[in-house]
Amino acid sequence: MIRLGLLGCDRIGQVHAGSLSRIGEAQLVAVADAVPEAAKTLASRHSAQVRDSEAILSDADIDAVIIATPTSLHFDQIHAAAISGKAIFCEKPIDLSSERASICAEAVAEAGVTFFTGFNRRFDPSFAYLEAQIRTGVIGEVEMIVITSRDPNPPPISYVETSGGLFRDMMIHDFDMARFLLGEEPAELFATGSCLVDPAIGAAGDIDTAAVTLQTAKGKLCQINNSRRATYGYDQRIEVHGAGGMLRAGNHPEHFVERAGTGGFTHAPNMHFFLERYEAAYLLEMRAFLDAIRKGIKPSPGIEDGVAAQRLADAAARSHALGMPLKLSR
Amino acid sequence: MIRLGLLGCDRIGQVHAGSLSRIGEAQLVAVADAVPEAAKTLASRHSAQVRDSEAILSDADIDAVIIATPTSLHFDQIHAAAISGKAIFCEKPIDLSSERASICAEAVAEAGVTFFTGFNRRFDPSFAYLEAQIRTGVIGEVEMIVITSRDPNPPPISYVETSGGLFRDMMIHDFDMARFLLGEEPAELFATGSCLVDPAIGAAGDIDTAAVTLQTAKGKLCQINNSRRATYGYDQRIEVHGAGGMLRAGNHPEHFVERAGTGGFTHAPNMHFFLERYEAAYLLEMRAFLDAIRKGIKPSPGIEDGVAAQRLADAAARSHALGMPLKLSR
Amino acid sequence: MIRLGLLGCDRIGQVHAGSLSRIGEAQLVAVADAVPEAAKTLASRHSAQVRDSEAILSDADIDAVIIATPTSLHFDQIHAAAISGKAIFCEKPIDLSSERASICAEAVAEAGVTFFTGFNRRFDPSFAYLEAQIRTGVIGEVEMIVITSRDPNPPPISYVETSGGLFRDMMIHDFDMARFLLGEEPAELFATGSCLVDPAIGAAGDIDTAAVTLQTAKGKLCQINNSRRATYGYDQRIEVHGAGGMLRAGNHPEHFVERAGTGGFTHAPNMHFFLERYEAAYLLEMRAFLDAIRKGIKPSPGIEDGVAAQRLADAAARSHALGMPLKLSR
Amino acid sequence: MIRLGLLGCDRIGQVHAGSLSRIGEAQLVAVADAVPEAAKTLASRHSAQVRDSEAILSDADIDAVIIATPTSLHFDQIHAAAISGKAIFCEKPIDLSSERASICAEAVAEAGVTFFTGFNRRFDPSFAYLEAQIRTGVIGEVEMIVITSRDPNPPPISYVETSGGLFRDMMIHDFDMARFLLGEEPAELFATGSCLVDPAIGAAGDIDTAAVTLQTAKGKLCQINNSRRATYGYDQRIEVHGAGGMLRAGNHPEHFVERAGTGGFTHAPNMHFFLERYEAAYLLEMRAFLDAIRKGIKPSPGIEDGVAAQRLADAAARSHALGMPLKLSR
Repeated sequence: MIRLGLLGCDRIGQVHAGSLSRIGEAQLVAVADAVPEAAKTLASRHSAQVRDSEAILSDADIDAVIIATPTSLHFDQIHAAAISGKAIFCEKPIDLSSERASICAEAVAEAGVTFFTGFNRRFDPSFAYLEAQIRTGVIGEVEMIVITSRDPNPPPISYVETSGGLFRDMMIHDFDMARFLLGEEPAELFATGSCLVDPAIGAAGDIDTAAVTLQTAKGKLCQINNSRRATYGYDQRIEVHGAGGMLRAGNHPEHFVERAGTGGFTHAPNMHFFLERYEAAYLLEMRAFLDAIRKGIKPSPGIEDGVAAQRLADAAARSHALGMPLKLSR
Repeated sequence: MIRLGLLGCDRIGQVHAGSLSRIGEAQLVAVADAVPEAAKTLASRHSAQVRDSEAILSDADIDAVIIATPTSLHFDQIHAAAISGKAIFCEKPIDLSSERASICAEAVAEAGVTFFTGFNRRFDPSFAYLEAQIRTGVIGEVEMIVITSRDPNPPPISYVETSGGLFRDMMIHDFDMARFLLGEEPAELFATGSCLVDPAIGAAGDIDTAAVTLQTAKGKLCQINNSRRATYGYDQRIEVHGAGGMLRAGNHPEHFVERAGTGGFTHAPNMHFFLERYEAAYLLEMRAFLDAIRKGIKPSPGIEDGVAAQRLADAAARSHALGMPLKLSR
Repeated sequence: MIRLGLLGCDRIGQVHAGSLSRIGEAQLVAVADAVPEAAKTLASRHSAQVRDSEAILSDADIDAVIIATPTSLHFDQIHAAAISGKAIFCEKPIDLSSERASICAEAVAEAGVTFFTGFNRRFDPSFAYLEAQIRTGVIGEVEMIVITSRDPNPPPISYVETSGGLFRDMMIHDFDMARFLLGEEPAELFATGSCLVDPAIGAAGDIDTAAVTLQTAKGKLCQINNSRRATYGYDQRIEVHGAGGMLRAGNHPEHFVERAGTGGFTHAPNMHFFLERYEAAYLLEMRAFLDAIRKGIKPSPGIEDGVAAQRLADAAARSHALGMPLKLSR
Repeated sequence: MIRLGLLGCDRIGQVHAGSLSRIGEAQLVAVADAVPEAAKTLASRHSAQVRDSEAILSDADIDAVIIATPTSLHFDQIHAAAISGKAIFCEKPIDLSSERASICAEAVAEAGVTFFTGFNRRFDPSFAYLEAQIRTGVIGEVEMIVITSRDPNPPPISYVETSGGLFRDMMIHDFDMARFLLGEEPAELFATGSCLVDPAIGAAGDIDTAAVTLQTAKGKLCQINNSRRATYGYDQRIEVHGAGGMLRAGNHPEHFVERAGTGGFTHAPNMHFFLERYEAAYLLEMRAFLDAIRKGIKPSPGIEDGVAAQRLADAAARSHALGMPLKLSR
């Protein structure tokens, strides 16, 4: 039985608590949140205790912590957890600064603790199947990847102001997917973007529409496009073209009913957003974290994957600011 | 060069004339129609002469005739063409009475002329591919066929009054498809139907919605459903379930553009009706007719296929009237 | 808090226990099974007690029972539960004899207890949405329904020998769907079938492939086709054609990845079988049962729906045996 | 009746001759080709004369010329045709040098002759419908376009050596589509590419896989990806994302039959290549050319569209060579 503590009882913290309740051999012991009521509600739903963060990060009856707090707290919490020898599940991004994320990686390596970066999409059954299919060689060498990732609605401006920007809070997932699927690190990157959805986003210093091109040393290409708004639901597609064919992971519809009439054939919009679309992925990533702890193996995605994706996000922000492609060091 | 005469310059006659103009080694020599203007217009478009039907059926410079006249004229025209030794392409049905159609078959057999029944759907690229796939054995033995066939709009009541009824003028195509695909003759049939689309059709003594079940001696099953109206365009689907899998021929959309919005994803309605959907089939059936003449082989579908489908239509009308399934003799 | 007892700890009993664990305000108090080990395992997984069936059916600390035992036990268990005033969730069929099922209905009515028939498909999100769409009038009056229902593999022959036959154990679900969607009771039925999948099924006196036609008093038509085997996974489709359009509920794929290569575009087979396809439906039907108890309302589907579907199954078996359509009394 | 001369009797010349034979009020008077046999064969099929190019470009009985010769001949032929006042249909590219193409444009403007650039894709029914839908405002302002364009197989190396490279011979069509759909000229471009399909292409100084990003002054984005090889047939897709939704033009399958089996559901590969996929487009573009002549209006796409697309192709080649994004002057 693995005993866990949860830091952060907001939406994503609740998702992780729910996952734990569906997985055997794991127990949510304690939860913490800056808002006492949030912690209390979640604790009572899962028969867990409310403790403060510091306690959870140090108490001997806790084997592992789930860090689902605001990004600005990650750095200290990771260090505290590593020092007290706890396995760590941390939501992305590790830190808004990839330099500070690297420092976390060093602390984790020194402490020798298990660290899992919450790139849930790797566990989406469609994307996981896509990756597994690539590895079978069914489409031969990967040549071109096209990733489409559009949110249903822009986040609140308050979020935009502190998120680190579209490349760091949104496209970071797509960068991780690119790394996951290319089979080779990107060696060059060109990023551009626009503010087309909401002028308030531009006023806050961010963009809401973006196009990025990645190229590996062998010449493999990846195009990523992002938008903060899609009227037809969460748009999450990946297409991988290779020497022997193509693999495409499509969207997940809300239902499977089609209506035919004079206007044609209409099927369901996509599932609304990440909580619906990635429901299975959240459960599966938590299983993978717990499995890694149990088996004493390095989890994937590990902390280095979190750092690598953030470096791509940083590079994208810089490329966009400079209007130039950038070479990426390994 | 095969020299042809066309009887009937209405819509379907025009389609056949157009097909001939796209096929080499065939020449439309003469056309006839009860409406002189119709014959004249078509003749001038294809540089053919206007003659009267009797001349076309007997003139020595005509090798083959295409009979696209009202059904009531088929019997005499088939006999006249057979007697003068002409190859015959005849639109379905051969005659409203399957007994009289059998008499035509005898006359054709006696004269030894080539006779092609215009079951165009056998030449639809999708259905032809479906049939070819079945013959490869890819789905093993056929067990169950589901045929959906719905017209976009009901025909005029004047047509309903003389067509012989839904089973004979509409479902006859589906009966031919069932025979084409089952690989075995139906041995039993149950037909039922309703008037749901337009009460005027009921007042004219017909139904507009029908469901038929066929069963072969080996127990293979076929369900056919027909409607005189489908708001989303011509609905022409065939599904064949076998021991090793399923084959489905889907509808042909008007275009390939999908629109996504808050209501979901909408693609095009089906092609409007038979002239659009079966455009390729009309050309290909004419090629098959001319090929059979050139090679001196028995065409498929031949006159016996025309007769067989009409017998199924007759049986369906009787089954529906009696409210009973019928055994079918071979 | 509703306190429940579960009779039958086999596969479907486990599904219901799992559903209860995901629903608040309900508690699985006790479980029973003829195989003590099965009861023990399930009890320990859900922190419930093992009791014997009689105790569960009478103990005062149990508000409601879930009957997931072999069909032959339903009659007595329903009576016992009704007498002790417990709300009843009963798997279909209520009894292999629709007469005996009617007697159960009377006992339930007399006792005034809540009775829910486990027609899970009504709660499948796709089918529920389909039904809701029909009720909005978006396709106008229903005219023709086509239900395709094919299992991935035949059941063991031992099951076939006692199941009551394909119409009663398999098509009964489709009969319920037909009633659910037609908006009017079937007035006439014609059933036929064959043994095409496995001769051992025929030797056991059953068929494995079936085609049924239903017609209502107003003339609405419904075609149902069943097969005990589909190589491409569980095939569960419903198509409803109406005056203003068509609604189609399609299959649920195992995943959303498409592979393109020289052979074309290949997407996933269907989810394997009912446990996967109807996972959401099992949870939602349990919620509906508990809601009905809480609100003191008659649940839907109620016992009369169970009885009505069985009457259709009985009529189908008789129609098939006689080779005749049957009028159905209300 | 418009009287036409055809220069170039190769594959694409034959397509245009075939289109003319299907359009009324137009007559193919004469054809020319460097290979006398090619000219003779095509002339006899269409009852046209064989003349030499110079004659066709000057003879008074010719109203319009179709230039389907190798690109290197276009410049002189366009000038000759303009001088003799003939309407001109010219295959893309106008010239490998966009400067020389501009000189052609000046000559055409001076002569005041009708000039149609053969960007057939604008007439593809799917793409034309897509464009028309954008213009209705159904998806609001265009924000992001994704164009996927992959040939089934690489061309012969001899072609690669003289084609001007992937950006000029292949992506030029996509650049025209981008201009057609964006509703605004690209203001910046970044192009990159690799040789992944065939090293011989790299040895010939070209790439076979490419990714380009375009951005307009208002910030609209367009990503284009090209490959010289796709195992599943000609891949021609366009997706337009806007403020109010998305429009997608999908591939055209070889047929509409789907096969289901243990491996899942497989549908047809795409139509093989441009002659099949754009068959309708070739006919429709010729109609548009003839209509423009008849009505005395400026055709669209005109010569300035040909020049504009070539400038984008030139810029892409330069951007790729420099590894830098380029600002585009209007």
